[in-house]
Amino acid sequence: MRAITIAEPGGPEALVLADVPDPVPGTGEVLVEVVASAVNRADILQRQGFYDPPPGASPYPGLECSGRIAAIGPGVTGWSVGDEVCALLAGGGYAERVAVPVGQLLPVPEGIDLLTAAALPEVTATVWSNVFQIAHLRPGETLLVHGGSSGIGSMAIQLGKAVGAKVVTTAGSARKLAVCRDLGADVLVNYRDQDFVEELGGHGADVILDVVGAAYLGRNIDALAVNGRLIVIGMQGGAKGELNLGKLLVKRAAVIATSLRARPVEEKTAIVAAVREHVWPLIEAGAVRPVVDRAFPLASADDAHRLMESSEHIGKILLTV
Amino acid sequence: MRAITIAEPGGPEALVLADVPDPVPGTGEVLVEVVASAVNRADILQRQGFYDPPPGASPYPGLECSGRIAAIGPGVTGWSVGDEVCALLAGGGYAERVAVPVGQLLPVPEGIDLLTAAALPEVTATVWSNVFQIAHLRPGETLLVHGGSSGIGSMAIQLGKAVGAKVVTTAGSARKLAVCRDLGADVLVNYRDQDFVEELGGHGADVILDVVGAAYLGRNIDALAVNGRLIVIGMQGGAKGELNLGKLLVKRAAVIATSLRARPVEEKTAIVAAVREHVWPLIEAGAVRPVVDRAFPLASADDAHRLMESSEHIGKILLTV
Repeated sequence: MRAITIAEPGGPEALVLADVPDPVPGTGEVLVEVVASAVNRADILQRQGFYDPPPGASPYPGLECSGRIAAIGPGVTGWSVGDEVCALLAGGGYAERVAVPVGQLLPVPEGIDLLTAAALPEVTATVWSNVFQIAHLRPGETLLVHGGSSGIGSMAIQLGKAVGAKVVTTAGSARKLAVCRDLGADVLVNYRDQDFVEELGGHGADVILDVVGAAYLGRNIDALAVNGRLIVIGMQGGAKGELNLGKLLVKRAAVIATSLRARPVEEKTAIVAAVREHVWPLIEAGAVRPVVDRAFPLASADDAHRLMESSEHIGKILLTV
Repeated sequence: MRAITIAEPGGPEALVLADVPDPVPGTGEVLVEVVASAVNRADILQRQGFYDPPPGASPYPGLECSGRIAAIGPGVTGWSVGDEVCALLAGGGYAERVAVPVGQLLPVPEGIDLLTAAALPEVTATVWSNVFQIAHLRPGETLLVHGGSSGIGSMAIQLGKAVGAKVVTTAGSARKLAVCRDLGADVLVNYRDQDFVEELGGHGADVILDVVGAAYLGRNIDALAVNGRLIVIGMQGGAKGELNLGKLLVKRAAVIATSLRARPVEEKTAIVAAVREHVWPLIEAGAVRPVVDRAFPLASADDAHRLMESSEHIGKILLTV
């Protein structure tokens, strides 16, 4: 098959379409004929050589895909060859075929086309596991979403609103904030000329979903409500920052940092099952929708990465196979 | 009545026994005739002027007591005048009488004398709420207790062992570590000449109960296991430290800082109810015991503070009224 390979870590030109051996589904896995994949920030780190795939994962980038089941490995029940699916991957989505642990498969939600379904697995699993399973966002609480126009951000805004939370979001342009408003965000903060701590006001944020890391750490703590939970899932603003434990203690608050990719298959299976139970019905009812910027052919993965690195996109960037 | 007052913040001599008005139990409160109180680090901070009582709390120090109910306020059921009790307080334990919200009362456990019962409320509520309700320590996990010979530490070691955890503890002398061993600690670390990160070994600590704060922040993160939870309840080593979010993210770990005193009455009530349900039976069965260093008369509260500041004590320091 053909896949995007990374012969030498570097810029977008490091992504090279090449002929590689087909994956073989192991016990408890299926082989998916990929229709589309999507770009995640982690793919850029992997391309740059900063984020090796976890042990046992495909060496090719791509943390999610949609497609059709082409073969069934030993011990798999409940799925058939030809089923249209999307899937959370530990790697290998930028390829014509990928082997997937069965617990990481999801059906394509009703009302969503097979191509667009590739935009769903990472954002739904990331937002559900962090904002709901870990931070336990409750109706009536305030959720602060940094980068509301990103793939993750656009899903976090919608899921926050769907459960009855107040959603405050930051983005870097009026164009992006308009999209956040359309997705349901209650308070819009342009981080280029507004301070999100001030805009949040007195109560603060019960839950913060952050992708900036160190550069926002101090202000995120200032922005937390009593009993608040700061969840850091990206470090676009650095990894090492000063933490004021005194402020954290007065607020009885938590700083939690997580990633999805390195979790063992059992944990991913549990997350995917919860997504199917809680998020899929919201998508099928039209209350929550994938936000897609545009799609590139797999051979133009370099251009897809350039677009993500420009931060000019809104929502997900797809790759069609 | 007489109470220890703090006319001017300062050293131990700032604690002055004086005649003050009797407290009056409000709705949902009882008046307790105090038999004993106990010293907590927070009392020292209050004496020094660094930790004002929360709004509505007694201005006198003392976060726990034992004694007999002397009067019942409006709306209180289930308790009678003369009942022997111990209680978690927002302040005012260093006094002959104190008004207590009824949800913060506990019966004296069978087998524990009334004086010694004053050693129980703060340590049991602090350890249970943090290690179990917040950090969810599970059987088979590893608990790291810093300062294992302190009041909090001695209770954390015992409760950790009682639920089937492996307990690693630090202390500053062989004498203190011997007490920790007798309480059940599995691994003893003298922090003066051993590195607790090394002594923990490969898996690390699933839960860390820390009173040092900033000075241990980096090494505590290094010591955490995957999915680990660091709970900071004291800052004897400073408040501001560098947090490496990258390390936290790789471990999918949490840093949580809490205090008990400032929690609203409803939260304290829930914690005390859980302590009565889960910890009291262990005490009555003899599986968990209060560790008391010695008792001082209330008028010698200054000497009790000097002892705590010397860190020469093991377990709780009581004040008898």
